[in-house]
Amino acid sequence: MSCTDRIGIVAAVSGFLAQHRMWIVDAKHHADPDTGRFFMRQEVLADSSPFGLEELRRQFESIRQKFEMSCTIIDSDELKRVVILVSRQAHCLDDLLYRLRSGEMPFDLRAVISNHDDSRAFVEWHKVPFHQVPTDGTNKDAAFREIDRILQQCEPDVIVLARYMRILPPWLCEKYPGKIINIHHSFLPSFVGSRPYHQAHDRGVKYVGATCHFVTQELDQGPIIEQDAFRTNHADTIDELVRMGRDVEKAVLARGLRYCLENRVLLNGRKTVVFD
Amino acid sequence: MSCTDRIGIVAAVSGFLAQHRMWIVDAKHHADPDTGRFFMRQEVLADSSPFGLEELRRQFESIRQKFEMSCTIIDSDELKRVVILVSRQAHCLDDLLYRLRSGEMPFDLRAVISNHDDSRAFVEWHKVPFHQVPTDGTNKDAAFREIDRILQQCEPDVIVLARYMRILPPWLCEKYPGKIINIHHSFLPSFVGSRPYHQAHDRGVKYVGATCHFVTQELDQGPIIEQDAFRTNHADTIDELVRMGRDVEKAVLARGLRYCLENRVLLNGRKTVVFD
Amino acid sequence: MSCTDRIGIVAAVSGFLAQHRMWIVDAKHHADPDTGRFFMRQEVLADSSPFGLEELRRQFESIRQKFEMSCTIIDSDELKRVVILVSRQAHCLDDLLYRLRSGEMPFDLRAVISNHDDSRAFVEWHKVPFHQVPTDGTNKDAAFREIDRILQQCEPDVIVLARYMRILPPWLCEKYPGKIINIHHSFLPSFVGSRPYHQAHDRGVKYVGATCHFVTQELDQGPIIEQDAFRTNHADTIDELVRMGRDVEKAVLARGLRYCLENRVLLNGRKTVVFD
Amino acid sequence: MSCTDRIGIVAAVSGFLAQHRMWIVDAKHHADPDTGRFFMRQEVLADSSPFGLEELRRQFESIRQKFEMSCTIIDSDELKRVVILVSRQAHCLDDLLYRLRSGEMPFDLRAVISNHDDSRAFVEWHKVPFHQVPTDGTNKDAAFREIDRILQQCEPDVIVLARYMRILPPWLCEKYPGKIINIHHSFLPSFVGSRPYHQAHDRGVKYVGATCHFVTQELDQGPIIEQDAFRTNHADTIDELVRMGRDVEKAVLARGLRYCLENRVLLNGRKTVVFD
Repeated sequence: MSCTDRIGIVAAVSGFLAQHRMWIVDAKHHADPDTGRFFMRQEVLADSSPFGLEELRRQFESIRQKFEMSCTIIDSDELKRVVILVSRQAHCLDDLLYRLRSGEMPFDLRAVISNHDDSRAFVEWHKVPFHQVPTDGTNKDAAFREIDRILQQCEPDVIVLARYMRILPPWLCEKYPGKIINIHHSFLPSFVGSRPYHQAHDRGVKYVGATCHFVTQELDQGPIIEQDAFRTNHADTIDELVRMGRDVEKAVLARGLRYCLENRVLLNGRKTVVFD
Repeated sequence: MSCTDRIGIVAAVSGFLAQHRMWIVDAKHHADPDTGRFFMRQEVLADSSPFGLEELRRQFESIRQKFEMSCTIIDSDELKRVVILVSRQAHCLDDLLYRLRSGEMPFDLRAVISNHDDSRAFVEWHKVPFHQVPTDGTNKDAAFREIDRILQQCEPDVIVLARYMRILPPWLCEKYPGKIINIHHSFLPSFVGSRPYHQAHDRGVKYVGATCHFVTQELDQGPIIEQDAFRTNHADTIDELVRMGRDVEKAVLARGLRYCLENRVLLNGRKTVVFD
Repeated sequence: MSCTDRIGIVAAVSGFLAQHRMWIVDAKHHADPDTGRFFMRQEVLADSSPFGLEELRRQFESIRQKFEMSCTIIDSDELKRVVILVSRQAHCLDDLLYRLRSGEMPFDLRAVISNHDDSRAFVEWHKVPFHQVPTDGTNKDAAFREIDRILQQCEPDVIVLARYMRILPPWLCEKYPGKIINIHHSFLPSFVGSRPYHQAHDRGVKYVGATCHFVTQELDQGPIIEQDAFRTNHADTIDELVRMGRDVEKAVLARGLRYCLENRVLLNGRKTVVFD
Repeated sequence: MSCTDRIGIVAAVSGFLAQHRMWIVDAKHHADPDTGRFFMRQEVLADSSPFGLEELRRQFESIRQKFEMSCTIIDSDELKRVVILVSRQAHCLDDLLYRLRSGEMPFDLRAVISNHDDSRAFVEWHKVPFHQVPTDGTNKDAAFREIDRILQQCEPDVIVLARYMRILPPWLCEKYPGKIINIHHSFLPSFVGSRPYHQAHDRGVKYVGATCHFVTQELDQGPIIEQDAFRTNHADTIDELVRMGRDVEKAVLARGLRYCLENRVLLNGRKTVVFD
């Protein structure tokens, strides 16, 4: 939940939980002095709740209204629906599929969409629908409308651009605000746009990184969810940056997606609050 | 504060603060499932409190008793009294003196004690009392009794072994439980005891670190407050490990001391809870 | 190559390469002042060599003898033969299979051996032979003899224990000296033996790590090839350490194996020289 | 040294050293495939050289000419002359003075120049000349001419902008090419210009860093020598970024300066080769 900061928010929420004997597993809050907003995440043991989900929402409504909270109450057992978009480079896709398959990161993978067919066999081996939608032809717009059609069928909670390498048209970004996350292979705001490893190599930086961020209409300008970087030096070629970068991209995207799946990310203007 | 975990602790405390219109600047809690203990730190704007410190303690007493809390309520404007013990290597001492002098880390440095005289001029330039107490002679016990005498005069809240290189006798450790912190130049529990950089070099590890921990009677076994490490490889000599290590030691000790000065460290058996 | 350090080694080798107009792609050396040994790795463009591999070895022989070098001259195009041993946890296996499949890390994977059958389908999808050899029964010795039989057929250059969780008998370790690498899920020498994440959690360390090392008869005491660590704090449960640890294990093992495949690791007593 | 890459450079240089029985302590080289340049650094034990410095230069001249090397041969015992420019924030200055005073990083500190007088007492306690040159008045140009006059007297090998906070005029930058190093408090190329911690906070990045680079006429665009970064999150205020940043700035500048003092930095267009 988030709302305008004032005295008594934590008291009201924790008082409500205590009154109904609900056991808090994890609680985090953050007050942003710049925007005057207050953010909170409470994780409660479902077994300790006297209410089902709907009743809980009803019971909490008066507090929500009093503080004019923007508030989401969800059951963490309900799997989030996810669609992954991927291009030729499949390291992030492979990484997420393993985390899914092994039970480390449970979600409901509705589909994988790609402009190439390379990953079909591997994705289908996981019994996940695979859609090839080429975007290189003359009719790009038709391609993105086809992608939108698939997305609509999947009703995704999160759309993951796992090194998708195509820029989504503005109308598509607008349609899923706060739902599309991307992994960009640079330490944003450094090296926006294409070929960031080449840009980094040209500039001679001593660390190279990756950034998981929400997609907005402005390229690579959306709120940052997670980042990481690795050491490099004059001896590393672009090929070596690409190779080392893959490992950081995988790790950063996996963390970013996990934060989203576990409702740990709250938007705060063009920034995020991440209760990791 | 810390107490046995149960429902209603946060509700009671935040309810108390809200009722008296006190503004929470920072709040952190942690429930340890292993020990069943609950830990909490609340930072409240003094101006927003209707009570002085003594009255606040009185008002809070009923909640404290109800939950059988071990609880400390302090005024962060009151400087903590600190004594630093140092040997020949003065990099940690220099680092802490700069943080003190520049106002970054305010504390009341009552004295610096050393078995050597090298740092006298520098310490006295800061108008801080310097005591040389040699410990190499025949009468070690007398030396530590002299150190204890100085400590008693200083009434320290925190005693910092800033690369002191002498092992305190058990009776002295016992006298200041939870008040003595040490910087050990290894990534504990690796390389306990003397010459840890030599041990690390011999073993061929690829990272070398430093550990800030509470001093107990068992050498290098006290609760860990903070750690960090740096990359090394086959080409680094012991001298280079020592040089690189100094920078990590300084940083780790400064963070550890700051956590103590700001009451961010709570003991949890042989472990710590650090609300950083 | 490695040999006793003396004047003229680099001159002799680089003189030989220059005389035959061979183009050096990468050159690294290291002189160990403790042991008086000198280590060198030269990567030469095959096309620039006037000799085939056998002739090159013959031509170089007089220099090798003069300096009593222990020396290996290989063709980096020839794939190394690898066997992977794995238990239930398959994250390292999955990671290595992706690197193999995508062409990032080329090697000749002769077989995967496991005490469980879980990974069979995934391994066989890659057209790699999978052998289940249970080790929990009464006849452990027979199991390891069966493993040895498979290994002998595979003639591996590198045997990878990718979270194998079984201790190899000494006679098997001895049979493949410098060829077996293991990923241990702690920051060695901390937390040797079983359940290192539990040990780390108990000790309250602030970083947790993973170590790739050569397997010798002494458990977790072999020469360290690569390590890494991640930040943790009081709030992380053992399950979270295990989850975060997997990512570091994968990365550390992949780097360690790559160093071996590219002949970047030289043994120096109980330590390694890694020309990364 | 650096020169156009071709076969035989290492052979010629190491052959020369071997012929005269000179003992190589450390040797590093790098061939840049983009520019076709070859870079090398050889550290030789002075006692093993049959020549003094002048004679060594003469003897080496024919090799230097043959390969058209840009080459510097120096005696590492000869201290480099350094001038430090500083503004109000003195953490980097304090850090460098400790390294100087303790013998960790020997150099000949000819002067400290500042636009403020705050650091005078501390600098003069070290018996180092301190010059206050205010730059805020109407005649900025006169101020920088005064600074240039002091620099000329000092004949510096390295000029260190240790959080100087003033932009040097182009004519002054041009006068000391490859000799002025700066510490910028951001992870360049992110957040060029003023108040980078504010910019980083506004953008919501998850790591914040510092960069040591050569000063050229273009602000914050010079070749990067060294960088590092630290983790941050939504809860860190700008004041906390500033505090944590100081520690990274100190460390990065100290490493960058050490590389310069030990002749480990070679310029390669707008990038550096750092033989660390």
